[in-house]
Amino acid sequence: MYYDLVVKQFKERGVEIEDIANLVYELQKAYVSYLTYEVCHEAVVGVLNKREVQHAIMTGIAIDMAVENDEIRGPLKEIINRDEGLYGIDEIIALSICNVYGTIALTNFGYVDKLKPGIIGKVDKAGKRLDKCNTFLDDLVGAVAAAAASRIAHGGNNKID
Amino acid sequence: MYYDLVVKQFKERGVEIEDIANLVYELQKAYVSYLTYEVCHEAVVGVLNKREVQHAIMTGIAIDMAVENDEIRGPLKEIINRDEGLYGIDEIIALSICNVYGTIALTNFGYVDKLKPGIIGKVDKAGKRLDKCNTFLDDLVGAVAAAAASRIAHGGNNKID
Amino acid sequence: MYYDLVVKQFKERGVEIEDIANLVYELQKAYVSYLTYEVCHEAVVGVLNKREVQHAIMTGIAIDMAVENDEIRGPLKEIINRDEGLYGIDEIIALSICNVYGTIALTNFGYVDKLKPGIIGKVDKAGKRLDKCNTFLDDLVGAVAAAAASRIAHGGNNKID
Amino acid sequence: MYYDLVVKQFKERGVEIEDIANLVYELQKAYVSYLTYEVCHEAVVGVLNKREVQHAIMTGIAIDMAVENDEIRGPLKEIINRDEGLYGIDEIIALSICNVYGTIALTNFGYVDKLKPGIIGKVDKAGKRLDKCNTFLDDLVGAVAAAAASRIAHGGNNKID
Repeated sequence: MYYDLVVKQFKERGVEIEDIANLVYELQKAYVSYLTYEVCHEAVVGVLNKREVQHAIMTGIAIDMAVENDEIRGPLKEIINRDEGLYGIDEIIALSICNVYGTIALTNFGYVDKLKPGIIGKVDKAGKRLDKCNTFLDDLVGAVAAAAASRIAHGGNNKID
Repeated sequence: MYYDLVVKQFKERGVEIEDIANLVYELQKAYVSYLTYEVCHEAVVGVLNKREVQHAIMTGIAIDMAVENDEIRGPLKEIINRDEGLYGIDEIIALSICNVYGTIALTNFGYVDKLKPGIIGKVDKAGKRLDKCNTFLDDLVGAVAAAAASRIAHGGNNKID
Repeated sequence: MYYDLVVKQFKERGVEIEDIANLVYELQKAYVSYLTYEVCHEAVVGVLNKREVQHAIMTGIAIDMAVENDEIRGPLKEIINRDEGLYGIDEIIALSICNVYGTIALTNFGYVDKLKPGIIGKVDKAGKRLDKCNTFLDDLVGAVAAAAASRIAHGGNNKID
Repeated sequence: MYYDLVVKQFKERGVEIEDIANLVYELQKAYVSYLTYEVCHEAVVGVLNKREVQHAIMTGIAIDMAVENDEIRGPLKEIINRDEGLYGIDEIIALSICNVYGTIALTNFGYVDKLKPGIIGKVDKAGKRLDKCNTFLDDLVGAVAAAAASRIAHGGNNKID
């Protein structure tokens, strides 16, 4: 329903579908023989077509932007802007993306959240600029990649769904 | 750390600690003999002193207010403002409050979320006014009550924590 | 993959698909106009066709039976056999069924877990016999019903999947 | 309550508290200056003293043993014995340990579940022997380590609890 909108929002915040598909490829290439980039791209598109995923992305990006625009203020602004390790709500919203794809998605998310490969590290670093906040964005990207990897692991794009 | 702040924010949005303590009493009275209102009040204060709980409350209320202030726009504003049953992110953030108190908190939350007793129904109804948005608030209140009830069930205020 | 097996195991433990479909009908009739029993039955079948759901059911029933057969011993046997409110692992496994169906499934589960309507109450009561253990079974049945209700709420059997 | 029992069960299955404390040290040393092994050991003991954690460990090990003893049979025995990547219930039970320690525990678990450092890899490998099943054990160990690391990150052993 909001697929085009979330793709546009990701793009405006510096994330292309291609970046996420590349992450998925790195995550799954050791486990799936004959894995191609195309399969990864298709899996990302499949994940982004889910309503719950779209809601999570739209909400997380809205919070990042409200912090940048000084519409969220006080201690919460500081906590989110500094991307405090103990904040936790960014991961909570991201995990809601993983939940619908089973436990493989959850463990993949923990892995990329810790190592911050590819676009995740780039987004995380860009968010450290004074006028930028990507606290939710990097986790959302990691969760979409983790979910897409799980989608592939579940034996084709249409097995778990 | 932010106990005073979340109590103040709840109050400004129409929720008193007493309202939540009353919910807890209703939830637990059938299971705990000699349950008193004071024990329920103390359990609510205990829950509100947890950092993860404070983060969840501050974030949820910030989103409700950003919707009221037209700082969140587009389809997301409509989805949140209408409190769409399929939105889900309000419950996700509320469930992060329950998570730290175990599965009794989760099932209690499901129960109050469905029946909307006491202050939850009041907050839910108030949020239907055109200029108000309590989409996150009612779930946060339900989650704090459910967590406090679980805290009591776990045999005193200091067993699970 | 194991659809026939879990239906057979449910039957052997006293639960028919029809019982679960009736629960779903009760849960959703207030929200969906023109809801029919057939739609509920179809939703239950859809849920039981998911691999993660099958794994949860097979595991939970195996634990109940291992307790009955004295293959699980010591304090754990006592905890499970008494269906201790603080045990929690029965709900944890049941919640893994709900997870893949989003937050509506989670709150529905909390509701039925607390009220124990229809077959859930029957299974729960049967498990109190000295030679029977249904500690996991009642939660599994509740979770399947909650997940099926959520499947219907998500607008047809093929929207969230 | 069952602290001594779970320590004994871990030992009988080849896992010492020291092994887990070492994992915690590796997980947290990059984040906490002046981290000592003693602090990690104390955090593991703290985690193992929680009732929900004890229930998860006792249940997981009971399932592993029921598989070894041929008390769980049929397809479920095969699925668990092969530690099938899509089984998921082992991670579900392990994640219930992480839940009470917040999102840092969840992401740490994902990380160790994927990389299998130290004792986790050893347990995982031992479980591949024909007469052994450690499908739940390796995840339980990883979850306890992840939870203990989170406990330390939350600023001392008594902050989140």
